[in-house]
Amino acid sequence: MTPCAGFDIVATLATVATKEKQLDPDDFYENGHRYFLPHLSIDCAVFGFHEGELKVLLLQWRDSDEWCLPGGFIHHQEPVEAAAVRIVRERTGLENIFLTQFYTFGDPSRQRKNKKSRYLPAIKSDSWILQRFVTIGYWALVEYSRVTPVPDQFSSSCAWTAVDRIPPLILDHREILDKAMQSLRLSLNDYPVGMDLLPDKFTMPELQKLYETLLDRKLDRRNFQKRMLALDILQRLNEKKEGGAHKAPFLYRFDKRKYLRARKQGLRLGIS
Amino acid sequence: MTPCAGFDIVATLATVATKEKQLDPDDFYENGHRYFLPHLSIDCAVFGFHEGELKVLLLQWRDSDEWCLPGGFIHHQEPVEAAAVRIVRERTGLENIFLTQFYTFGDPSRQRKNKKSRYLPAIKSDSWILQRFVTIGYWALVEYSRVTPVPDQFSSSCAWTAVDRIPPLILDHREILDKAMQSLRLSLNDYPVGMDLLPDKFTMPELQKLYETLLDRKLDRRNFQKRMLALDILQRLNEKKEGGAHKAPFLYRFDKRKYLRARKQGLRLGIS
Repeated sequence: MTPCAGFDIVATLATVATKEKQLDPDDFYENGHRYFLPHLSIDCAVFGFHEGELKVLLLQWRDSDEWCLPGGFIHHQEPVEAAAVRIVRERTGLENIFLTQFYTFGDPSRQRKNKKSRYLPAIKSDSWILQRFVTIGYWALVEYSRVTPVPDQFSSSCAWTAVDRIPPLILDHREILDKAMQSLRLSLNDYPVGMDLLPDKFTMPELQKLYETLLDRKLDRRNFQKRMLALDILQRLNEKKEGGAHKAPFLYRFDKRKYLRARKQGLRLGIS
Repeated sequence: MTPCAGFDIVATLATVATKEKQLDPDDFYENGHRYFLPHLSIDCAVFGFHEGELKVLLLQWRDSDEWCLPGGFIHHQEPVEAAAVRIVRERTGLENIFLTQFYTFGDPSRQRKNKKSRYLPAIKSDSWILQRFVTIGYWALVEYSRVTPVPDQFSSSCAWTAVDRIPPLILDHREILDKAMQSLRLSLNDYPVGMDLLPDKFTMPELQKLYETLLDRKLDRRNFQKRMLALDILQRLNEKKEGGAHKAPFLYRFDKRKYLRARKQGLRLGIS
């Protein structure tokens, strides 16, 4: 793969060993419906926060300029949630992931046979993989530094890319990614964020920068601080961050118990 | 059907004419997978606001004490959204419905063959209907008075029932209903509600009663009024509601343009 602007931490099949048990491609195309539920797939938008940017994990199809979200299929006796966790684990190496199911995409045009399929090799026209697929979308916000991107057997690379520099994606994956970002942003009204994304101790401007990156817009400093403190999930420490050009700001830490409770029960910021 | 406490506006197959084109049951059980996507279904929680109560539309299985949410299947070339709209239209007669997709339920135990199926007649054990189904959940909040409940071909009646008096439901339909209510309540933070549920002119206490019913808890009067006015979707009229025991309250009306914009773009009540 030639290096691409906008990508970092790129893994290629040549450079990583994958623990995934890989199906023989011919067997997969011919008999996949014996292993997996037909017509149903899962696609995942895995987000990370890195150097002040929101990034998402993408796979590049072999011998193609097209990219896609990590995805996969559901074994006949596998819970859908478990399949999503397995798929994200295989691409990231992460064991404990908080996945959010956000939407199921069911347009009948979601068929690979409708595309000039450079990214699919010669497959029999009655293969299950060329039929209509309804796909269940999940997103996760993970700790960037803990991820080891791993391509799957159909892709040549797996890379983090900034959400404002997304290359052409297959099928409706651009729409799925946009809806995942919308869901991630709306979730900030309902759930706390930051525990695994910021250092243990952080300043209010650092927390604000995280929210501004996730929301892709500037926030008013005083309103932000007021709202954050009202959530009652932060502890202000008797320490200040030294060394900056400005007046040293106080350091904060999440109250773990309260944070995890809000993660579970919701913040109740609005009317409800 | 014997009359049940907790139900009102009950329709039975004997009393209503259904416009739905009904499949022959034997054909449906034997060949349904030729007409519909296998392993995939849709279930809908249709809510109405009536006499100060939140109610939901349920169907009673023929010759059974068990009830279920209205549901159905997706034609091979039908968009999932269109299938959901069709299913709700067939049960309610409503043409323009705002449906919210809230979750897809995918536990492998979702199989009718796992139940002692009093509600399914003798069906061949390899019938598609006895296989695992992943179901896509939708909810709608509709104008109670405009609904004409219509049973489907597998049920003996279709009835509104208060959400705090739900009878035994099949499979995981109780879990689906609970999650639909949770989604409906969370949506009050993001979207306005009330346009089709209240009279054209209403008082602040009437609006508060609607929210309290949907949320199933009391709200502080002053905070509620302050938050509602801050949404900038209400017009205060130069009229008061006369005839009550208390001081006459002002009448309000939704600003239709602003309401519909908020319905589309969200209220942005919280951080985002």
